[in-house]
Amino acid sequence: MKILLIVGDGMADRPLKELGGLTPLEAAKPMNMDRLATSGISGFMNALSLGVAPGSDVANLAILGYDPHRVYTGRGGFEAVGAGIELRDDDLAFRCNFATIDSAFNVLDPRAGRIGDEARELTEALGDIRLKSAPNIQVIFKHTLGFRGVLVLRGEGLSEKIELKAPEAGLKIDDIRPTDDSEGAKLTAEILREFVKETYRILRDHPINRRRRGRGLPPANAIIPWGVGRRPHLKSFRELYGLRGACVAAVSLIKGICRLADMTVIEVRGATGDVDTDTLAKAEAAIEALEKHDLVFLHVEGPDEASHDGDLEGKLTIIRKIDAMIGKIMSHISLDEACIALMADHTTSLRLRRHTADPTPISIAYAEALRDDVQHYSEREALRGGLGRIKGIEVMPMLMNIIGRAEKFGL
Amino acid sequence: MKILLIVGDGMADRPLKELGGLTPLEAAKPMNMDRLATSGISGFMNALSLGVAPGSDVANLAILGYDPHRVYTGRGGFEAVGAGIELRDDDLAFRCNFATIDSAFNVLDPRAGRIGDEARELTEALGDIRLKSAPNIQVIFKHTLGFRGVLVLRGEGLSEKIELKAPEAGLKIDDIRPTDDSEGAKLTAEILREFVKETYRILRDHPINRRRRGRGLPPANAIIPWGVGRRPHLKSFRELYGLRGACVAAVSLIKGICRLADMTVIEVRGATGDVDTDTLAKAEAAIEALEKHDLVFLHVEGPDEASHDGDLEGKLTIIRKIDAMIGKIMSHISLDEACIALMADHTTSLRLRRHTADPTPISIAYAEALRDDVQHYSEREALRGGLGRIKGIEVMPMLMNIIGRAEKFGL
Repeated sequence: MKILLIVGDGMADRPLKELGGLTPLEAAKPMNMDRLATSGISGFMNALSLGVAPGSDVANLAILGYDPHRVYTGRGGFEAVGAGIELRDDDLAFRCNFATIDSAFNVLDPRAGRIGDEARELTEALGDIRLKSAPNIQVIFKHTLGFRGVLVLRGEGLSEKIELKAPEAGLKIDDIRPTDDSEGAKLTAEILREFVKETYRILRDHPINRRRRGRGLPPANAIIPWGVGRRPHLKSFRELYGLRGACVAAVSLIKGICRLADMTVIEVRGATGDVDTDTLAKAEAAIEALEKHDLVFLHVEGPDEASHDGDLEGKLTIIRKIDAMIGKIMSHISLDEACIALMADHTTSLRLRRHTADPTPISIAYAEALRDDVQHYSEREALRGGLGRIKGIEVMPMLMNIIGRAEKFGL
Repeated sequence: MKILLIVGDGMADRPLKELGGLTPLEAAKPMNMDRLATSGISGFMNALSLGVAPGSDVANLAILGYDPHRVYTGRGGFEAVGAGIELRDDDLAFRCNFATIDSAFNVLDPRAGRIGDEARELTEALGDIRLKSAPNIQVIFKHTLGFRGVLVLRGEGLSEKIELKAPEAGLKIDDIRPTDDSEGAKLTAEILREFVKETYRILRDHPINRRRRGRGLPPANAIIPWGVGRRPHLKSFRELYGLRGACVAAVSLIKGICRLADMTVIEVRGATGDVDTDTLAKAEAAIEALEKHDLVFLHVEGPDEASHDGDLEGKLTIIRKIDAMIGKIMSHISLDEACIALMADHTTSLRLRRHTADPTPISIAYAEALRDDVQHYSEREALRGGLGRIKGIEVMPMLMNIIGRAEKFGL
């Protein structure tokens, strides 16, 4: 028996007034998710613990069975590895956003209007960046997907002791500050501020940005690093579970986690990490991957992005697209051959536009399941599911038990 | 108020196709268990933690309130003490099976067709076993019940660092191997292999085995040790809870746990540790024991044995016999005087023929119970019981609270 683990990033939500008190999952009426819930057993999950809002990094680590309290070394490391950079132990890595800032270096739009492929061209304009504040530090920037990129600083004397918030409107570049008195922290903060200013210098009048302004779009006139991290070290998935694992995901964070776990990372044409992603292509990739692997981790980023934008229509759209993806999968995969587990890694509140600690629904369908009477995959019905309350770190042991490969203690 | 704790070993199961998607507990329609569930509050229990499949040894330890991670020193120690052997700290103890092997020392039937009393006579034929590989090591073998026995090795230089799987068809005697490079481990592995060969030499042409062959039954032509262990040390039950405890059980493992906990171990005529056990005699013994004790631990091994054999009829039969046992008990004991807790120590999947980590139903009936709306003692109904999800180690504290003797913290 095999395992298909499906995560809709930030898919869970709170009841919304504009939906008459329904959540987006309830309002979208996702019939295939409901069929999955009806064919299995459901419950509600906190990726970490009750009352702790997880980042996508630690939530997905926990779901794959890696205790974030032990392995988490900051987001940047996962992102850089996911972007294909051979990260060294001494490197400092950062997630980056193409953003819109003003001439006083205040963030106006943290995602530059969700710029797409144009960011690739802007990246080419950057060339080799050399910084006055640290001529011996190598600066490696790589564009990944849409408004996203990664930055790696390589060289001596760097420190991760810096304050670096995820960019949002109102953030100032001067907010990049050392959090201790070390020379390394001061130097690193200076490098990062100079990096932002340097990208602004190069990008502000780039033809693409002139064109964007002309069309009333926010220019991607700077690159903002955040999520500092060191290279993480994960036990290989195969060593941990004896399973051949594969990953179908668009975003570098998830690819990085899976690459570090030595899973096969499958690239899918049309996977954008956004609401416009091609979920049916991802379904096909997952179905195919399941032929040669024991576990496939299928991750869809879109719901989280729509929630951070407060984009209700977008969230409903991507939920329905994930539902179609699940429909395609369920018409190809028998629940005798594989168990299919569906969950959100965390709740992203559309109203608050951020992650919350609300538990998220999880449904696990397989032929031998003790079916409960949950009829819908939703936050509300999950609360009376037979699984009860579980934690992210318990998901993999539960799935291993379902396929008859539970850890044993005693005789 | 007193406590009657009833464990049906491996009684819980998964839905089975041959039962139209019901579990054996659901299909058996055990009316007295259902009455017990209706008279109390139910929930689902993992003896250890979610996703870990427990052996019967650690599961029953946990249910009695002994943390297996602290007290477990291997199965053999409990078995030997349960068989009445005065185990010393330096001894190595093993559970043994009378088995059927071929002349190349491959296991053909790990339980020799579930041989019964004949194993007692075969044991007499063994006499004093002396081994060439270790003339100074004392070899103590004792038959216990049916196909079961225990082996104790006494003397210097022994080591528990040996690989010893529970016997199943296909196991080779050469699979008994040291797991480290120590002389003790090499010696112990050699002793065990010689022990098996020596029992084969003595037993293969024994008249009983000739007779068995003549009747088309597998001969019990060798004894296979497994479950290596040292002498465990448990705090006495009385010291731990202030309760006079008694145990009604057939198998040495459970007797050993209870003897080490300084509980009264009651021998019951007709208790076989198998499907053919006399559950009504056990009911009588438990009712009587409850007069002079505060807690009686009533354990029935049969469901686990039937499950390991893939014997569906046997599992249904023993569940119905346990149901009759509970009926007898409930007609003699008032829920004002005692709380009755019914559980399985773990799930044994009849299909997989092994223990799984699936949670097991637990129902606790007592006059003051906050009755939920669970109507049946079953895996499925337990999932919506008022107790929710609990762990084995939480059972005794809960029962102590019910009888008004909870541990206190603060004033």
